[in-house]
Amino acid sequence: MKEMTTRFYNAKILTMSDDGDPFDGELWTEGARIAFVGTADEAERKKRESALQDGIRFADEIDCEGNLLMPGFKNAHTHSAMTLLRSRADDLPLDQWLNEQIFPVEARLTEEDIYHLTKLAFLEYLTSGITACFDMYLTPRSIARAASDAGFRMVQVGAVNNFSQSPELVEEMYRELNGKDAYNSYVIGFHAEYTCSRELLEKIAALADRLKAPVFTHISETKGEVAGCKERYGMTPVAFLDSLGMFAHGGGGYHLVHVTDEDIRILKDRGMFVVTNPGSNTKLASGIAPISKYLAAGVPVAIGTDGPASNNALDMFREMFLVTGLAKLKDDSASSVDASEVLKMATVNGARAMGLNDCDVLAEGKKADLILIDLHAPNMQPVNNIRKNLVYSGSKSNVKLTMIEGKVKYRDGSFFIGGSPDDIYAKATEIKERIDREMAGA
Amino acid sequence: MKEMTTRFYNAKILTMSDDGDPFDGELWTEGARIAFVGTADEAERKKRESALQDGIRFADEIDCEGNLLMPGFKNAHTHSAMTLLRSRADDLPLDQWLNEQIFPVEARLTEEDIYHLTKLAFLEYLTSGITACFDMYLTPRSIARAASDAGFRMVQVGAVNNFSQSPELVEEMYRELNGKDAYNSYVIGFHAEYTCSRELLEKIAALADRLKAPVFTHISETKGEVAGCKERYGMTPVAFLDSLGMFAHGGGGYHLVHVTDEDIRILKDRGMFVVTNPGSNTKLASGIAPISKYLAAGVPVAIGTDGPASNNALDMFREMFLVTGLAKLKDDSASSVDASEVLKMATVNGARAMGLNDCDVLAEGKKADLILIDLHAPNMQPVNNIRKNLVYSGSKSNVKLTMIEGKVKYRDGSFFIGGSPDDIYAKATEIKERIDREMAGA
Repeated sequence: MKEMTTRFYNAKILTMSDDGDPFDGELWTEGARIAFVGTADEAERKKRESALQDGIRFADEIDCEGNLLMPGFKNAHTHSAMTLLRSRADDLPLDQWLNEQIFPVEARLTEEDIYHLTKLAFLEYLTSGITACFDMYLTPRSIARAASDAGFRMVQVGAVNNFSQSPELVEEMYRELNGKDAYNSYVIGFHAEYTCSRELLEKIAALADRLKAPVFTHISETKGEVAGCKERYGMTPVAFLDSLGMFAHGGGGYHLVHVTDEDIRILKDRGMFVVTNPGSNTKLASGIAPISKYLAAGVPVAIGTDGPASNNALDMFREMFLVTGLAKLKDDSASSVDASEVLKMATVNGARAMGLNDCDVLAEGKKADLILIDLHAPNMQPVNNIRKNLVYSGSKSNVKLTMIEGKVKYRDGSFFIGGSPDDIYAKATEIKERIDREMAGA
Repeated sequence: MKEMTTRFYNAKILTMSDDGDPFDGELWTEGARIAFVGTADEAERKKRESALQDGIRFADEIDCEGNLLMPGFKNAHTHSAMTLLRSRADDLPLDQWLNEQIFPVEARLTEEDIYHLTKLAFLEYLTSGITACFDMYLTPRSIARAASDAGFRMVQVGAVNNFSQSPELVEEMYRELNGKDAYNSYVIGFHAEYTCSRELLEKIAALADRLKAPVFTHISETKGEVAGCKERYGMTPVAFLDSLGMFAHGGGGYHLVHVTDEDIRILKDRGMFVVTNPGSNTKLASGIAPISKYLAAGVPVAIGTDGPASNNALDMFREMFLVTGLAKLKDDSASSVDASEVLKMATVNGARAMGLNDCDVLAEGKKADLILIDLHAPNMQPVNNIRKNLVYSGSKSNVKLTMIEGKVKYRDGSFFIGGSPDDIYAKATEIKERIDREMAGA
């Protein structure tokens, strides 16, 4: 008797392996991986073949009732623990927001605080069908512990700058967190050109070269950042970082709103990813990234929410609509950036940018990181086109189930991450109140 | 014994009557109206006073568990029955979208089709906390019947143009639907300057003057529309329509994306409303409306989703984020259009634009058109600022309950509009398949 973990049946399946239409079928998992995906007929045949041997038994069988099974969304740029700062300081000019609110609060965060605040973000990711995040924040070990404890797929990236972390810490974390467990991995990175000295950047480039590893960082988010870099080095941030050999083994940039054609050529030549953050770029008035140009140049684009202080939602549906909507506004064309492209960015490209090459599509042998989308909801009816529905009218309210590493983490409004959401909310409130007291006393 | 209908207790209450913080309290309804709103102490006192007489009995008591009670959102511009066209023709140039997809499908719609497709939109409105819509479409009587049958608050507006409806029909509907029942009302209107002859427009202006009624229409949605009007009449659409005396008794414009300072002065002088539709303007690449300028000039702004063919969601949370987000991008300022202003647009201003002066805020004597927002959800935690949470991280997934005319229409995912959602989805699919067949045969 073959023991399988979960059988999803009566599903519409959008594998994202190609541009094909969703088909009616089944998906089986065995432990953390997808063991079978195919039509109901193929499933029946496979079962009959197994019966000739010892048969198959499933630990769990889920009737999808005609709803849509697809790969989970990958949040390719975030600062999860900034949940604390959500709605704390909105509608302020950028410098006032950073200096009077964000920095003073962050200075008071402990490792333990960050552990709990990261878990709060996981809850929100799960409600939006996000199965992995690419997280840049302060205390890698407590963030990794949150991921392991909750069973959430976490790719961390170094946040080195002149004031915290170091190339040495990045190397240590790179060695410690890659291979720590199924949930954690780590990528070389630094905060941004404008928060790192040239010497520091050179050390990171050397480290990346030694480890033959890609490097990710914030690049060209604001006009001011680009102007500052040009003043300092006579080059755009992309060109300057490239001149240090930073991207010899690839990598990518978060934001990349303000770029030149030459920048785009460099991104293409180095095999880099653009991680776009339209919600954040909108709310902070940073600008609109040239998504159509990236697509035309063949530069792969992934999507991130950025942190909850600057967005403030961690919702891939909002981001997907914005990616194409803002491109349409920027290009003055209702046909810019087809919804199908956006769906690829949110799933396949995100996984690849994050080094999660086993989590990109629904196929045998891939990780069972997947979601079930309710099509029996008013915003999904009638079903003229599932891909367009997902991008243009889809909502986190359509997420019925989120599975990571073959385990159901969220289903019909309930969370399965060990511990209750109410305890996590209470912790976040406790931290907020403590820091409010500290700041009032200061 | 005084019979009351519903007692909401353990609520945080955001009345939207002023800029005050939400308070902990209770709200009671009596039939269609709010009979009491106040703190728990005030509620206790009121009960004691009643007990000295005969006491109060509630037909239903709802424990809000600390969640937020606030006025329902008003969708101040839509074409509800276009649900059929959702995701049918996206990512196309505007003229191809209209001429090859929208118009041929609409030509095949029956009154009965529109009845069912409008009900499908009601389901979606309810999930997003929308308690009333301002609907412009083809068959006013069947739309009014859908509203009466479902118990959804419907304000229709005339859709006169050179090809359908007429000033006579508008007058007939104005007299028939205003006062038809608690759910329906009707406002003078026409499709747009560019679809109406000057003679037709003059007739509508004369009708509005005779009825002393406001007039609403699509105005200045695209650059092409404005250029066309200037070519025809040597004036912008706002100035031209005003020159006909169209807005002698007020009214408003849907979209109003491309306007001059003189247009804004006219809107202000005539006491008109701007109904902004940022989702549609984004997806159709029409541009970004100058919301900050309207606010600075004291022109009230309301928010509409536009129809599901052009948005494609009917979701006030998406629209609220876009109103402020796009303003921030347009103004190059993260402090443009505070979230509190946006919340007023989505509730109070919408109600006033639609002539629903009893549905604007939570106060004694007002209609019980209200919603309950789940604050115990990851995207609402921690609660640093409820108004900002609603606009920046809120989602339709937070809508726990939607009440219209004192009746619960949606609660925890279930609908109470007479008939099952599945039947409505089946009807929509049947209509879609019939029209697909007709078009394939044509």
